[in-house]
Amino acid sequence: MTAPLPFAKRGTAETVETGTDFAPKFDKSGLILAIAVDATTNEVVMVAYMNADALAKTIASGEAWFWSRSRETLWQKGESSGNKLKLVEMRVDCDQDAILMKVTIAGDGVACHVGYRSCFYRTVPLGDEPTGERTLAFDKSMPRIEK
Amino acid sequence: MTAPLPFAKRGTAETVETGTDFAPKFDKSGLILAIAVDATTNEVVMVAYMNADALAKTIASGEAWFWSRSRETLWQKGESSGNKLKLVEMRVDCDQDAILMKVTIAGDGVACHVGYRSCFYRTVPLGDEPTGERTLAFDKSMPRIEK
Repeated sequence: MTAPLPFAKRGTAETVETGTDFAPKFDKSGLILAIAVDATTNEVVMVAYMNADALAKTIASGEAWFWSRSRETLWQKGESSGNKLKLVEMRVDCDQDAILMKVTIAGDGVACHVGYRSCFYRTVPLGDEPTGERTLAFDKSMPRIEK
Repeated sequence: MTAPLPFAKRGTAETVETGTDFAPKFDKSGLILAIAVDATTNEVVMVAYMNADALAKTIASGEAWFWSRSRETLWQKGESSGNKLKLVEMRVDCDQDAILMKVTIAGDGVACHVGYRSCFYRTVPLGDEPTGERTLAFDKSMPRIEK
C-alpha cells in the first residue's frame, strides 16, 4: 500500500507503549492480529487477521472486518452466516501489534464456522511429554448450532 | 527442525476441525499464536508466539513458555519478573492455528511488562474514519504495578 495509512506513525517503544497515539504495527504481510471476545463473558470466541483497510472499516462501522489470507480478500465476519460481530469496545496491546474486540455476536450467536459459540471448543490435556497420541476433548457444555 | 514434532500430523480440514488429534499448525516461521486469559475472569492478559518446543514445554510443565521473535530464543514468561503464567486449561481453535491458555498469574499478578494486569490497557475510540489523530484512552480501572 503506497497511500499513507489512516493511523499515527510508529514512534519510539516508549511512546508506542505509554502514549495515546494509535499506531498499530502491521507485520511483513501487512496484517495485525485481532481477537474477538464476548463483551459480557470475556470468552474468546475467535481470532483472525486484519489489514489496514479491514481495521479502518471495523473502527468506522463498529462491525468486524478481516483479511482472508487464503482467499486474499477483505471480508466481513457474518456477511453470509449472519453472525456479524458488533463491537462494544476495541483495545490495543502494549506494543500495538494486537487488537482486542469486545463484541456481541449477531444472528444465532455462534462465532465459529463449525457451529460452536467459540472456535476454542476443544481442550488440550496438560502434563507429561506430548506425543502424537495426545487426544483433544470437546467442551460439551459449549452451545452449538448445526451448520 | 528436522526431528519429528511431538504432535499429530495434520489431516484433512475435517479431521483437524472435528477430530480429537492434536495437530497444531505452525506458520512459515514455525510459530503458533498463544493467547493467555485470566482463568477466573476470562480477561485477555497477553498474546505471544510459541514454537513447537515452547508449546511442548508449556504442555509438559503447565507454565507458559514462548518463542521471542526479537531475541530468537525460548523464554519462560515470568522467569525474571516472577509473573509466571500457571495453566489451568489449554484449548486449541477450530483449524488448530491458535492456542488459548486459561492461567493464573504468579508474583504480583500483572502480565504486562509495562506493569498493567493485561497488555490491553488502552481503548481505541470507534466510529468515523480513523485519522492520525485518533487518541487512545487508558483504562484507569486496570490494576498496575510500577515496574
